Amino acid sequence: MSKRRQLHLNAFLRNVGQHEAAWRLPETRIASVTDIQHYRNLAKIAEKGRLDAIFFADHPVLKDRAQDRPWDSLDPFTLIAALSGVTERIGLVATASTTYNDPYGLARRFATLDHVSRGRAAWNAVTTANAAAAANFSLGHHPDPDARYERAAEFLDIVNRLWDSWDDDAIVGDKDGGTFVDPNGIHRLDHHGKHFDVAGPLEVPRSPQGRPVVFQAGSSEPGKDLAARFAEAIFTAQPVLDEAQAFYADVKSRVRAYGRDPARVHILPGLSTFIGGTEAEAKELQETFENLTLPTYGLAQLQRVTGIDYSSHDLDDVVRVPSRGEVASDMKSRHDLVHHLTSTETVTLRQLLRRLSAGRGHRIATGTPDQIAETIIHWFENGAADGFNLIPPALPTSLESFVEHVVPILQRRGVFRTEYEGTTLREHLGLDRPNVTRASRPFVAAAE
Amino acid sequence: MSKRRQLHLNAFLRNVGQHEAAWRLPETRIASVTDIQHYRNLAKIAEKGRLDAIFFADHPVLKDRAQDRPWDSLDPFTLIAALSGVTERIGLVATASTTYNDPYGLARRFATLDHVSRGRAAWNAVTTANAAAAANFSLGHHPDPDARYERAAEFLDIVNRLWDSWDDDAIVGDKDGGTFVDPNGIHRLDHHGKHFDVAGPLEVPRSPQGRPVVFQAGSSEPGKDLAARFAEAIFTAQPVLDEAQAFYADVKSRVRAYGRDPARVHILPGLSTFIGGTEAEAKELQETFENLTLPTYGLAQLQRVTGIDYSSHDLDDVVRVPSRGEVASDMKSRHDLVHHLTSTETVTLRQLLRRLSAGRGHRIATGTPDQIAETIIHWFENGAADGFNLIPPALPTSLESFVEHVVPILQRRGVFRTEYEGTTLREHLGLDRPNVTRASRPFVAAAE
Ligand SMILES: Cc1cc2nc3c(=O)[nH]c(=O)nc-3n(C[C@H](O)[C@H](O)[C@H](O)COP(=O)(O)O)c2cc1C
Ligand SMILES: Cc1cc2nc3c(=O)[nH]c(=O)nc-3n(C[C@H](O)[C@H](O)[C@H](O)COP(=O)(O)O)c2cc1C
Repeated sequence: MSKRRQLHLNAFLRNVGQHEAAWRLPETRIASVTDIQHYRNLAKIAEKGRLDAIFFADHPVLKDRAQDRPWDSLDPFTLIAALSGVTERIGLVATASTTYNDPYGLARRFATLDHVSRGRAAWNAVTTANAAAAANFSLGHHPDPDARYERAAEFLDIVNRLWDSWDDDAIVGDKDGGTFVDPNGIHRLDHHGKHFDVAGPLEVPRSPQGRPVVFQAGSSEPGKDLAARFAEAIFTAQPVLDEAQAFYADVKSRVRAYGRDPARVHILPGLSTFIGGTEAEAKELQETFENLTLPTYGLAQLQRVTGIDYSSHDLDDVVRVPSRGEVASDMKSRHDLVHHLTSTETVTLRQLLRRLSAGRGHRIATGTPDQIAETIIHWFENGAADGFNLIPPALPTSLESFVEHVVPILQRRGVFRTEYEGTTLREHLGLDRPNVTRASRPFVAAAE
Repeated sequence: MSKRRQLHLNAFLRNVGQHEAAWRLPETRIASVTDIQHYRNLAKIAEKGRLDAIFFADHPVLKDRAQDRPWDSLDPFTLIAALSGVTERIGLVATASTTYNDPYGLARRFATLDHVSRGRAAWNAVTTANAAAAANFSLGHHPDPDARYERAAEFLDIVNRLWDSWDDDAIVGDKDGGTFVDPNGIHRLDHHGKHFDVAGPLEVPRSPQGRPVVFQAGSSEPGKDLAARFAEAIFTAQPVLDEAQAFYADVKSRVRAYGRDPARVHILPGLSTFIGGTEAEAKELQETFENLTLPTYGLAQLQRVTGIDYSSHDLDDVVRVPSRGEVASDMKSRHDLVHHLTSTETVTLRQLLRRLSAGRGHRIATGTPDQIAETIIHWFENGAADGFNLIPPALPTSLESFVEHVVPILQRRGVFRTEYEGTTLREHLGLDRPNVTRASRPFVAAAE
């Protein structure tokens, strides 16, 4: 009997929690924001829950309204490299920008991470939404979305080829004959493209996973196209079931159109959960967070997404955010979400800010462990998701609660592992390892 | 009674050893080159020996003659980040290039490393000697030394200011009042220079050491000048005592000229040791390595340093490498070393290649533990060094041997710690922590 299709669950860890007011809860330790012990603890909780991976966002610029809340202030790559030493099995995903990195340096770092973590590294490729980043990287202005995605496609192609520049069996290690590597097992790229010139080969030998796993986030048309070409897992914000299903079907068909196997490209929406012993308790928990929100912060965020300044509006007036056709916005998919919400429901500005406070457009599930497991399985079995990026509102508490109460239900239902079966992230995700041997190479290129 | 001046010792760890033939020794495990367990073991040996730091080189391009020997094939930054998780006290130094990085990304990574290692991070700033690197980073040609050093100075200035962009007490964490940070404790740079435009501030809060420690390597005139302005420790290749003394005096006086305290800038030459129970045993050990060298590799290296192709010369002919005046070379200080050696001694090409096989221009000490301790103390007490970067010929064996046999002698002689007194690398090195508080700031700048 073939095994039942399995859910994939990552913990997307944002300092002391995704919810903007998490830091103001009495139990939150402010020092955790930069404390490695906090992150080690989170990694261990996630590993105890047998999650596929821990996952960190990337923000190469100080967020505005820093005074209002903590942000992801540690470099995500450095953080997962440090966590590789204190975890054994769990995957390690860091977001990094194709707009503000160079492909050789990035390929080298992730290939090294794959070695030092023994096959647990993944890169979440993003093009960076925050235009303020440009001023930290000697760029006069943040490139527009199409330019960013064009660069991203060339970037990803180069990184894959750098990771492939070493055959699996290039290291010969012949001490007597005095041959350390077979130069025919190492391949130059000599790439000359619109954005980059990269000779290669990488100086890092082939890594345990063959290539680190590639995630992607960014759900606009060019974003979906990039994902379909290169990604092995896709992070997306999908609060509504039927839209999630449409996104899922759309991306899977694009994957097929690129000649790739849709079963090997996982679509993983974000999911924030408020868990209570009863539904009422769960709702009360969510309200505890919402009561601590600061309107200054919510208004700034709303403006960042929509381009509209609502700070002179009455918080108790009903609000309707116009669609993107009417205003310019660089955060297309998030704008669409806010527009959709305010068009299909009657909400005041205050209610909107409270609604956005938890998820920033991601799906929120509030309820008992059974209710939450039920909705997860419902999405999973109805063409909306291959799993989820869990985005705990407060850390460590919301992650602990999920691992303790929801994971066992998913395991009993037979949709989630009770033990890691493999040692690499590719194995957790059911992705094949790309193998290139000297014999399998379609061509022979000379090493330098 | 004031404490005796203390030696500083770092372990400069090169894959399976600095010696080009280390990989061919029967006891060497080839897989160690990319095996994190190997590096964890080295870090633990160094920490057991109470060394100041472990230290890794940076080579962002595959070395030529890769077939002849292993190289530093893992990204050094990723490696020390991974090792931060499995060590407690020892400093973590990664080399990184100012020519092939951007200052914001680099400042962010090292500040994060300082957090996750709890104050043990250091950056060894180099300008990169290997011209082949340019082709991996979309640069038409490797900039000449003056251009590289000009960029390096601007780069270091920006990185320091990014690390200083947060006051030590900027995080207020006032949950009741709803103020996470004091915006007046965060400072933009708005740097607009010849090579870079960087707005800042960093998004990483002030790190445990205030700033990660800055090392520098590169001993030409502009290299020494850069070191005198910015470095807190200097890595240099000094095989000869009187030249080491001249270098030491020169750099310390340049430090003074920049208004900095020479006692707070450590000069640390490289040192490779062949240790034996008797002097004869030590020499025999060194010969074991030299007998395994491959002339193809030695000739390629000699050509890289001098620009001269000696492959048609008879290996048993006496060789005299002309001074730099006569040939162009980008590796000025190493060229000078080879020129000096072949001008002051009569050596055949084979002998020269054997001599270079261990140290690539670094000092080599071959003898009993007492002899080695003696020469270390002699340099230390006679104005040639504040300590050494130990470059073990083979790993782990040569490092084990040093820690087991030489360290105890240095401890008995009262020049080396028997226990770590502090927890940060700054404390190990006797360097003050730079403090910036909101009150001590000479100016008030607005956060974004
Ligand atoms: C779920 C999700 C997560 C993202 N995470 C990051 C991130 O951590 N860092 C970042 O710079 N951009 C991130 N992005 C932004 C994307 O890189 C992209 O620039 C932005 O979404 C605009 O592209 P789009 O219109 O294709 O969505 C994320 C986007 C999505 C949808
Ligand atoms: C002891 C020493 C160690 C060095 N280590 C590195 C290194 O790890 N990576 C690198 O790219 N360059 C390294 N360099 C090269 C320098 O960055 C510099 O480019 C080169 O030495 C030429 O500069 P100079 O003439 O000032 O010495 C090192 C140089 C010295 C002297």
